Amino acid sequence: MSVVKLEECRERIRSQLDNVVDFWLKYSHDTVHGGFFTCIGRDGSVYDELKYVWLQGRQVWMYSRLYRTMERFHKPEILEAAKAGGAFLRKFARVSRTSGQWKCAFCLTRDGKAVKVQRTIFSECFYIMAMDELSRVTGDQEMQLEAEQMMEQLIHWVRVDSSGLGRPQLPGDVPANSMAVPMMLLCLVQQLTGGRGPEVVQKYKELEQWCVQQILHHIQRDGTAILENVSVDGKELPGCSGRLQNPGHALEAGWFLLQYGAERTDEKIQSTAINKFIELPYQCGWDKTHGGLFYFLDVDGHCPTQLEWNMKLWWPHCEALIAFLMAYSQTRKPELLERFLQVYEYTFSHFPDANGGEWFGYLTQEGKVALDFKGGPFKGFFHVPRCLYMCERILDDLLANEDRTL
Amino acid sequence: MSVVKLEECRERIRSQLDNVVDFWLKYSHDTVHGGFFTCIGRDGSVYDELKYVWLQGRQVWMYSRLYRTMERFHKPEILEAAKAGGAFLRKFARVSRTSGQWKCAFCLTRDGKAVKVQRTIFSECFYIMAMDELSRVTGDQEMQLEAEQMMEQLIHWVRVDSSGLGRPQLPGDVPANSMAVPMMLLCLVQQLTGGRGPEVVQKYKELEQWCVQQILHHIQRDGTAILENVSVDGKELPGCSGRLQNPGHALEAGWFLLQYGAERTDEKIQSTAINKFIELPYQCGWDKTHGGLFYFLDVDGHCPTQLEWNMKLWWPHCEALIAFLMAYSQTRKPELLERFLQVYEYTFSHFPDANGGEWFGYLTQEGKVALDFKGGPFKGFFHVPRCLYMCERILDDLLANEDRTL
Repeated sequence: MSVVKLEECRERIRSQLDNVVDFWLKYSHDTVHGGFFTCIGRDGSVYDELKYVWLQGRQVWMYSRLYRTMERFHKPEILEAAKAGGAFLRKFARVSRTSGQWKCAFCLTRDGKAVKVQRTIFSECFYIMAMDELSRVTGDQEMQLEAEQMMEQLIHWVRVDSSGLGRPQLPGDVPANSMAVPMMLLCLVQQLTGGRGPEVVQKYKELEQWCVQQILHHIQRDGTAILENVSVDGKELPGCSGRLQNPGHALEAGWFLLQYGAERTDEKIQSTAINKFIELPYQCGWDKTHGGLFYFLDVDGHCPTQLEWNMKLWWPHCEALIAFLMAYSQTRKPELLERFLQVYEYTFSHFPDANGGEWFGYLTQEGKVALDFKGGPFKGFFHVPRCLYMCERILDDLLANEDRTL
Repeated sequence: MSVVKLEECRERIRSQLDNVVDFWLKYSHDTVHGGFFTCIGRDGSVYDELKYVWLQGRQVWMYSRLYRTMERFHKPEILEAAKAGGAFLRKFARVSRTSGQWKCAFCLTRDGKAVKVQRTIFSECFYIMAMDELSRVTGDQEMQLEAEQMMEQLIHWVRVDSSGLGRPQLPGDVPANSMAVPMMLLCLVQQLTGGRGPEVVQKYKELEQWCVQQILHHIQRDGTAILENVSVDGKELPGCSGRLQNPGHALEAGWFLLQYGAERTDEKIQSTAINKFIELPYQCGWDKTHGGLFYFLDVDGHCPTQLEWNMKLWWPHCEALIAFLMAYSQTRKPELLERFLQVYEYTFSHFPDANGGEWFGYLTQEGKVALDFKGGPFKGFFHVPRCLYMCERILDDLLANEDRTL
């Protein structure tokens, strides 16, 4: 692989990251009520004033991370945006305290009134990510403590008693291990411990190992498939839910595991991450006819019941780019770089909007733009910039060592 | 319009109805645990054993209605299927009785254990439809009473106090008038009163008028659009939810209103039904490029946030067929018959599966089959046979009077 090609990639990724940051700085800030507009149309106009909490938290995290770790984003306007978003979240996102437990809303009105609360843990996850990363920038100890307290509560819901989430216990609703939960918890452990001392690392060590084991339980069918939902003892579940594959999620879990493996030079985990969580979802998820990754598949080839199963969404492609580039940077196996470049070609020729800036998020199976907004209830300032940020950094490292092994 | 063409339509509709009834009789009955499988693949195989309560109720209703009103379906096997489905529903669908209120599950395991309960009224709606229609066939007074009791509770949830549904009251979640609610209630009033004496009609009269008024509140933008969600005082709501259009739903409401208007020879309602609830959704919802009705639209032309907005679903086409044919039969305006035939051509050339029987439910914007199952969480033995049943009966009437005005 030529260094020139990788330098081309890095330049494009860098300029896309600048473009995407500019887009959200320009269009998403609510200077009246604070927080961020998340429903932003093709041309940058706000088409709905609702503020989705996942996306508020993710945007605070992303601004803070860029400010803290990339020199060209270490600018007052980015810090101010992160702080303003954090203040809005702290003021409005937590809506109830039943039996001493906080619950975060899923969606707020423009002025911060709760519209909807999900009976899951994800609003809280992104709240924690936001508070921890922002506190690293501002040095706000109280905020960091708040992140850890919310984390304790999350762990309680996941591992001890989920009744605080408000979901009724039903006899037919057997507990399951859904990929999203250990993945998010592993991501949070990496967030809370990264660059901190051994005491903090120790505090979350057992949880981290539990998350990794829970993720590994999703390897099913004698190691030939990653399934999205398994039983709590790691068996395949019956029906559509049990057969569901979500290639983008598996790829994301793959690079979380790669990070975990690299930190402790655990080659077994690294190789499992690549062979199972990155290679298998790519093999089953890549559309050989039209290119791109399917959103959902059924491991037995039945038609998934999700209406959007065959659409090409931006975020699985973002996760695939990070996963393959990270896998290559850890192994230097040329076939992994080839995969990266294949996903890269599809992604950059389909998702970015050269006219309006930012990326389209939702394409038909054939690659036509199906929904043309830049931000919506589930698409905000997160997967695109995180992918570009991660890839730029990995490419920086690779190219800095180019004479060695590239 | 030639009588020959309408006779052709009737023959095709009649044979399709036979085909669809055969399909569900053959593939959907669970002879071990009772009730109906609802997740049925392209070829009739069961790909998931979950039993969705909306679809259980709808199938009981449809079998009972066919048995009661169409001679060729007045067969023991259809009666037995309806009774078996009704018994399964009565035994398993009602899952809780908090403060004296029944709540129906949304989804059950094969053996009847509750998997999920929605915080809406729709499982209960289809439970009522099933029990009332089945009791008309069997003469079971207790069952009929049960339908009325559930109806009382529904009315309480909708008009007095919704807290029994289990949805938390949130300050940003302003109460809204969602089309589905008054539509379903109007449908239930028509179900419970149809062919019964003046006492029953009187009992539901005020509710029926309330439903009609609530439906009429969805005429917005100076009479130029039907919006899916409006405020409780009949004003447009802000944001995506306020701008949402669901042409299939509006068309369905249209023929409910047409029935209401015809029963009392209320020409004003009939003309509103046709001009607003049938003509406007067709005008905005018909895809001029590829044909077929869009699933969702935004009245201001923004992209809807529902990923499936541009897909062509079977049920809006079913509702459109009933609506236009009923409108024509009430008015004899040739342009309404032309519309019927346009929808008919699209529908019959795209949805029926000549090989496996029954209809596909979900097409891409371009009309390609996107999900190939015949039954799923929201597609059962209901919209297709109800449409075919209604259209066959209307065509029978039209053709019986052909020499008069056709």
